[in-house]
Amino acid sequence: MLAAFVTIKVKPGSEEAFETVAKALVAKVNADEPGCKLYQLSRSDQPGTYHFMERYVDQDAVAAHRASDHYKSLGREMGQYLEGPPEIVRLTEV
Amino acid sequence: MLAAFVTIKVKPGSEEAFETVAKALVAKVNADEPGCKLYQLSRSDQPGTYHFMERYVDQDAVAAHRASDHYKSLGREMGQYLEGPPEIVRLTEV
Repeated sequence: MLAAFVTIKVKPGSEEAFETVAKALVAKVNADEPGCKLYQLSRSDQPGTYHFMERYVDQDAVAAHRASDHYKSLGREMGQYLEGPPEIVRLTEV
Repeated sequence: MLAAFVTIKVKPGSEEAFETVAKALVAKVNADEPGCKLYQLSRSDQPGTYHFMERYVDQDAVAAHRASDHYKSLGREMGQYLEGPPEIVRLTEV
C-alpha cells in the first residue's frame, strides 16, 4: 500500500472557500476511486494549515487519482486559495 | 474524528529492530483498540525515517491508546532505536 501526507497552507481569509472545494474533492475521490483507500482532509492547530492523508492500493491507483477529471478541475480550483505549493511526503507502508 | 501524523527518525542500523517492535505495536493497536480506526506504519524515502498515520473516533480513544499496556511497553522498547523524540502533528478531521 502507498500513502501520502500533504501539507497545504491557505491564504488568510480563504479557509472557508478552500474547505468547500477540498470537501467536494474528498467526496468525489471517495465515491469514484476504488483504488484509493483513504482520502481525508484535516485541519492542524496551526492557523490556515490543512493536511490530506491518502492511501492507495498501488501506483496505478495513484496514477488514476492524478489523471481523474475531479482531481484536475477541483485541484485547479483549490490552487487560487493556496499560499505556496503543497508539501508532499510520499510513503510506502511497512 | 481526530488524527495524528508522527515522524520518527531511527539510529543508523536500527531500522530492522525498530520495524519489528513497531509492527508488533501496529498489530496490538489494530486488534485491541476499537476507537482507533487507522494505525499504520510507513517508511518515507528519507533514510531511517518512519511515520505513523493514526485516526481515532474521539479524545477518549486517544486517551485509551496512550494508557494501554501495549503502547507503554512497546513504546518504551521502540525508544532505544530513536534518534531524538518523535514529531507529532495533531489533526482534527474536517
